[in-house]
Amino acid sequence: MIIVMKVGSPADEIERISQEFTDWGLSPEKIVGKHKVVIGLVGETASLDPLQIQEISPWIETVLRVEQPFKRASLEYRHGEYSEVIIDTPDGPVTVGKNHPVAVVAGPCSVENEAMIVETAKRVKAAGAKFLRGGAYKPRTSPYAFQGHGESALELLAAAREASGLGIITEVMDAADLDKIGEVADVIQVGARNMQNFSLLKKVGAQDKPVLLKRGMSATIDEWLMAAEYVLAAGNPRVILCERGIRTFDGKYTRNTLDLSVLPVLRSLTHLPIMIDPSHGTGKSDYVPAMAAAAIAAGTDSLMIEVHPNPAKALSDGPQSLTPDKFDRVMQELSIIGKTVNRWPQAKVALA
Amino acid sequence: MIIVMKVGSPADEIERISQEFTDWGLSPEKIVGKHKVVIGLVGETASLDPLQIQEISPWIETVLRVEQPFKRASLEYRHGEYSEVIIDTPDGPVTVGKNHPVAVVAGPCSVENEAMIVETAKRVKAAGAKFLRGGAYKPRTSPYAFQGHGESALELLAAAREASGLGIITEVMDAADLDKIGEVADVIQVGARNMQNFSLLKKVGAQDKPVLLKRGMSATIDEWLMAAEYVLAAGNPRVILCERGIRTFDGKYTRNTLDLSVLPVLRSLTHLPIMIDPSHGTGKSDYVPAMAAAAIAAGTDSLMIEVHPNPAKALSDGPQSLTPDKFDRVMQELSIIGKTVNRWPQAKVALA
Amino acid sequence: MIIVMKVGSPADEIERISQEFTDWGLSPEKIVGKHKVVIGLVGETASLDPLQIQEISPWIETVLRVEQPFKRASLEYRHGEYSEVIIDTPDGPVTVGKNHPVAVVAGPCSVENEAMIVETAKRVKAAGAKFLRGGAYKPRTSPYAFQGHGESALELLAAAREASGLGIITEVMDAADLDKIGEVADVIQVGARNMQNFSLLKKVGAQDKPVLLKRGMSATIDEWLMAAEYVLAAGNPRVILCERGIRTFDGKYTRNTLDLSVLPVLRSLTHLPIMIDPSHGTGKSDYVPAMAAAAIAAGTDSLMIEVHPNPAKALSDGPQSLTPDKFDRVMQELSIIGKTVNRWPQAKVALA
Amino acid sequence: MIIVMKVGSPADEIERISQEFTDWGLSPEKIVGKHKVVIGLVGETASLDPLQIQEISPWIETVLRVEQPFKRASLEYRHGEYSEVIIDTPDGPVTVGKNHPVAVVAGPCSVENEAMIVETAKRVKAAGAKFLRGGAYKPRTSPYAFQGHGESALELLAAAREASGLGIITEVMDAADLDKIGEVADVIQVGARNMQNFSLLKKVGAQDKPVLLKRGMSATIDEWLMAAEYVLAAGNPRVILCERGIRTFDGKYTRNTLDLSVLPVLRSLTHLPIMIDPSHGTGKSDYVPAMAAAAIAAGTDSLMIEVHPNPAKALSDGPQSLTPDKFDRVMQELSIIGKTVNRWPQAKVALA
Repeated sequence: MIIVMKVGSPADEIERISQEFTDWGLSPEKIVGKHKVVIGLVGETASLDPLQIQEISPWIETVLRVEQPFKRASLEYRHGEYSEVIIDTPDGPVTVGKNHPVAVVAGPCSVENEAMIVETAKRVKAAGAKFLRGGAYKPRTSPYAFQGHGESALELLAAAREASGLGIITEVMDAADLDKIGEVADVIQVGARNMQNFSLLKKVGAQDKPVLLKRGMSATIDEWLMAAEYVLAAGNPRVILCERGIRTFDGKYTRNTLDLSVLPVLRSLTHLPIMIDPSHGTGKSDYVPAMAAAAIAAGTDSLMIEVHPNPAKALSDGPQSLTPDKFDRVMQELSIIGKTVNRWPQAKVALA
Repeated sequence: MIIVMKVGSPADEIERISQEFTDWGLSPEKIVGKHKVVIGLVGETASLDPLQIQEISPWIETVLRVEQPFKRASLEYRHGEYSEVIIDTPDGPVTVGKNHPVAVVAGPCSVENEAMIVETAKRVKAAGAKFLRGGAYKPRTSPYAFQGHGESALELLAAAREASGLGIITEVMDAADLDKIGEVADVIQVGARNMQNFSLLKKVGAQDKPVLLKRGMSATIDEWLMAAEYVLAAGNPRVILCERGIRTFDGKYTRNTLDLSVLPVLRSLTHLPIMIDPSHGTGKSDYVPAMAAAAIAAGTDSLMIEVHPNPAKALSDGPQSLTPDKFDRVMQELSIIGKTVNRWPQAKVALA
Repeated sequence: MIIVMKVGSPADEIERISQEFTDWGLSPEKIVGKHKVVIGLVGETASLDPLQIQEISPWIETVLRVEQPFKRASLEYRHGEYSEVIIDTPDGPVTVGKNHPVAVVAGPCSVENEAMIVETAKRVKAAGAKFLRGGAYKPRTSPYAFQGHGESALELLAAAREASGLGIITEVMDAADLDKIGEVADVIQVGARNMQNFSLLKKVGAQDKPVLLKRGMSATIDEWLMAAEYVLAAGNPRVILCERGIRTFDGKYTRNTLDLSVLPVLRSLTHLPIMIDPSHGTGKSDYVPAMAAAAIAAGTDSLMIEVHPNPAKALSDGPQSLTPDKFDRVMQELSIIGKTVNRWPQAKVALA
Repeated sequence: MIIVMKVGSPADEIERISQEFTDWGLSPEKIVGKHKVVIGLVGETASLDPLQIQEISPWIETVLRVEQPFKRASLEYRHGEYSEVIIDTPDGPVTVGKNHPVAVVAGPCSVENEAMIVETAKRVKAAGAKFLRGGAYKPRTSPYAFQGHGESALELLAAAREASGLGIITEVMDAADLDKIGEVADVIQVGARNMQNFSLLKKVGAQDKPVLLKRGMSATIDEWLMAAEYVLAAGNPRVILCERGIRTFDGKYTRNTLDLSVLPVLRSLTHLPIMIDPSHGTGKSDYVPAMAAAAIAAGTDSLMIEVHPNPAKALSDGPQSLTPDKFDRVMQELSIIGKTVNRWPQAKVALA
C-alpha cells in the first residue's frame, strides 16, 4: 500500500503519519521523489481501508494498493518514479539508472593474478568502463574445477581498484565471506545459482553495499523480482537486476538465451535499474557486440562484459571473453548507438 | 561440397564441369558471387576425394567440404557471401539482405475487410513500410475461432496491393491454396506451426515466389536451417528466416521469448537474410518498439510489425498490434537507430 | 453446452430436441452413455440461457456449460463418461480405452523391406502386440535423409497386415496421401511436427479411420486437446492421444522428456483414450522397459514401442528400437505389472 | 581413475598401495564391494598411465579411467556396484537402495504445531512410512510468506520423532543452522533452489548425516550429479538424489514436470540411490497416486509424499498434500505394485 502525500506536505506531518503506521505494526518507508513524497507501507495491509487511512491527515493526496506480490520492488511503490543506484568508486560516485549513461562493467571471469587484473582494469578503464568485474569466489559446476583464489584474490581486486580508479563488482557465494568482500567490493554480486538462496539474500540485504542480483537460469520475472524484494525487505534499497541469459531447449550455439525482452517488461513492473550481461548470455565473445548494441537500443542501464588479456588461457569462461583490444573496438561501436539514444557519457572537454 | 572457381574462369568450362558432376549423379548449382563463381554440390559426396575433383579442371581453385548438415543454406556453400532476396513489388524490386536498408513489413494479423486493409496499407506505406502483411488463412488454436476469410481475403489483399504499391506477404496453411495465394502474394509465408510440415516445405520450394520461413516454437537453430534446406533443395533459392519468439518457461508477461541472439548466430552459419517479428515475439504492443530497435542494432535485415487500425476490436492478436499512429512514431524512432547503423532508406531528394 | 437427458427419454423426443437445436443453427451431437443420453451442443451458445433450454422438454434433466475451450474433447462433454475407440483389425475389433487391456503397438520406425516388416509383425504379434506401426512417409529433419519408401511401403504394410492379423498404424504427412493410406491403415497417425497443421487435422477429421494424434514437441496440454478438437469438430469421434516426450533443456541422455503426468492430467480433462510412446519419449531402447512399466502403472490405455530386427542397421531411429527378442522379454515383464492393475489381456484358454 | 583389486587381495597390500597414491598427492578411497575391493582415485590423474599403475602391485587386477566428469558419483567408480544409504532411525536402521524395499517419506510441507506434526507422524507411520518430512526452515518465493517456525519447529520434529519412531528429514537453508538441524534430523535435505549453492554443498559434505539432494528446477542430469559430487568430495558418502519435477513450458495443470526418466538414466550413470517426489513434481494431490505408482514401477528406491491433516488450511503447499486417510489408501494401492516388483516391505509375522 502506498500513501501519496500532497505537494508541500510538512516534514513533521509526514513524520507523524509514519509514526502512526509504526504504531499499527506496519513498516512505513519514506520515498522522496522529484515532485512528491510517498510513504510505502508493507505488512498486514490486506484488511486496511484506503478511505479510512486517507482520513489520518488532510495532507494525504491518495492511498493506493500495490497489486503486485513484489511490493518495494514494484514501480507502483515509487508511484512511477524510477530509482537510481548511486555507487561510490575511487573516481567518485557513478549513478546507474534510467536517466543516466549506460554504466559499463568489464573484466575477467575470475581474478587470476595481480598483473592480469591490474592490466585488465587499466585497459577497460581507458576504454570507458566504470566498474571492474572479477571473481574471487567462483561457482563452478565441478568441485574439481578452479574455485577462485578467494581471499587473496580480494587483495588483488583492491590493488586493481586503487590502480585504476574503477569500482569493484565481485560475487559472494557464502554469507560468511560478506565482511571480507565488503571491504573491497563497491557492489556485491549474487550469482544466478544463488538467486533463490534466501538466506544469502537476507544477509546481503542487511549490509550496506549495493547488490547486483543476477537472474536465475530458469527464474520467471516474478521470481526474480521477489528475490530482489528479499534484499529490499531486509533494508537495502540499492539493487540492480542483471539478465544473463536463461536456459532453453537449444544450447548448441549459445550457452544461454539472452532474454532482452526483460528490458521493456521490467520497465513496466519495477523501478530498479537493469544490467545486461551478453557474455554469459551468449557464451561466445563473437556474439557479444551485437547483443550489447541491442541491449543499449532496448534501453539497458548498464552492461557487463567479460574481458581477459588472453582468453585462450583463461582459467574460466575463456570462450566468452573479449581481448582488451577487441573490447576497445566494441566500446567505440557501442558509443555510436549509445550517443544516438542519449545514454553515453559525454567526452570531457579539456580546459585550457 | 563446394568447388571454388578461379577468377576469370570461362563460362563454358564451368558449364563443362557442372555437366560432369551431373553425369556422376550429383546436383551442381552455380553460385555467382561478386568476385568468384562457386559450384555447390549436393548428393552422395561423402566418398568423393577433393584432390581428385580438383584435377577435373585447371580452373578449379579449391574444393571444400560443407561441414554443416544444412548444405545449401550454409554460409560455406556460398563461400562466405551473403545472399540477397530480391522481391518484386508494384513499386519496384525491394532487396532484403545484409547490405541493404532494413525492410519493414507491417499490417494486421488477419484481413478483416476492404476498408481496414486498404487503410492500413496506405498508412504503413506512408510510414515507410515496404510490405503489407495480412492473414487470409489463419492458424488458430481453436477450431471455433475465426479462421481467416480465405479466398475473399486474398482479393482484398490484391486491392490493398494495388492501392498502396506495397508487396504482399501472406501465409499458406494448405498446399492446395498455393496457386491462389501465389496470384496475389509477393512472398509466401510458412508459419511457425508448419515449420516442420515437410510436405508443405517441398511444395513452396517447388514454386517461384520467395518464402518467409518462421521459426517453430521450439525449433533449434539447426532444425530451422534444415527446414530452409528443404525449400532450397526443392529449387527455390529465395528464403528469408523469421524469428518470432520461442517457447520458454515464462509466459506471464510475454507470449514468447524473442531470441535476438539468432542475429549473430545465423550470420555465422547461413547466407540467408533474417527478419525479426517483435509483435509475435513479445505478444504485447508496448514491448514492440524496444525490441524492434534492439533488432536493428543487432543487425536484422527486416522487421515484421503488426499494425491494426483498431487493436481493441481486432479479430485476432489485438494486444500485440500497434495503431497506425503509434506505428508512425515507432518508425521515426527506429529510423534514428537505423540511420546510425547505415541500414535505413535515404529520404528521396525532391528534384526541382 | 451439454443437455443431460433423463433416464428413459424416448428416442423421438431426443430427435425432436436435436432438430430444434439444429433449427437454431447449432450442431447437436447425441452421446449414448451407459446410463444416460447426453446431447452435446457446439456453436454460438454463449448467449443461451440454460434455464430456458431446460423448458424445451420435460425429459431434460439438466443443462450444463462446458467450461473448457475444448468442447467435444472435454470429459464434461460426455458427462464424465470415458470414450472407447474401437478399431477394426484383421483379427477382429480391438478396443482402446480406460476399462480395457493395454493395447500394444509395436514395429519399426520405417518400413524398410517386405521381409523385415513381415517378420517384425509376426514377432510382435506373438509377443502380444495388437497393432503394427511402421512409417511409409517419414518426417525427417534433413531433406537428404531417408524419407520413407512411400506408396510401395504401404503395400508392404498391407502384406504384413495380412500375414500377421495385426492392425496397421502409419503416419500421414500430406493430405493428398490420405486415400492411399486409408486403404491400408487401420489407424491414421498425425505426427508431433504436424500437431498444429490445422489443414491436415481438418482432413483427417473428415475421413473415417481412427486418428492417433501425437503431442507436439512443445505443445501444452490445452493446445494438444484443441488439436484433437479440430479432428472431432470435423466429424471424426475416434481420436487417441499419444504422448511421445516433450522438449526440455536437457537432451544429453534422453532425446525428449517423457511426460507421464499427462496420464492423470488428461484423465481429469478429457474422455479420449491415451497412448504412451516411451521409444520416442526417451530415444534410447535401454530406457524403454522402465518407462513402459511406469506408463502402465500410471494408467495408460495403450503403448507404442519401436521394434526392429536389427536396430544397428535401421534406416531411422535405431538407438531407440528394441530387438524382437528384447521385446519378448519386455512384454513378459510388462504383463506382470499389467495384470496387477487389471489392464492386461487374459490368456485364452485352449478348448479341448 | 579406479584400481580394481583381485579377489583375496591382502588388506595390508591395499593399505600400501593407498599410501603410495597419497604420497603422489592423490586422494585414494577404498570401496569394499560384495566381491572385490576397488580403490577410487581423484585428483590430477590425467597424466597417469594405467599400465604403469598396474605395475605397482601384482594384486591389481585392472586400472580404469572414469570417463564421466562426476567421479565419485559415477557407477564406474564403484565398478558397477550400487551403493546403499543406511540411515539410523529410532526404530532401527533403514536402508535405501536398489535391492531394498521402497522407503517412503511422508509428512507436511512445513511443521505448523506440535499436535499436527505428531498426529501426522503417527498416521504416516501406521500407513507404512519410514521417515517424516517437515520443514522448519522454508524457502518461499516471497519474503512476506510464512518462512517456517525455525528452531522451535526442530523441537517439534524431535517430539514427533520420539512419538513415532520415524526418521526425520528436514531442509537446511543456511549452513549456520546445520548443527542445530543435525541434532534432530536423520537426513539433511538440500532443496532444489540450493542445488548449486556450492558453499552449502561443501558444508553438508563435511558433516556426518546423510544428505537428500533435490534436483534444481532446470538442472541437467550432469549438473545434478556434479552437485552430488561436491558432497561426496567433501567426505560424505551418503547421498540420495531426489527428483521433484523440472520446469518446462507448461505449468497450467502441473506445477512442474516430473521427470521419471531419471530412474533408468541415473541407474546407468550413478550408484547413488534415488527418491521421487510426486507431490512437488505435480503440485496437485490428485496426480500423486498415479505418479507414485509409476515411480515404483520404474524402479525408484524411495518416495517422498506430502501429507497434511488439513490440506485446505496448510500454511504452505496445501494443494499438493494428501490427507492421512487418503495417504492410507494410496499406500495400500502402492503396496500392490510394490509387491509385484519385489520392492515392498514384507508384513511382519506376529509371533505367538
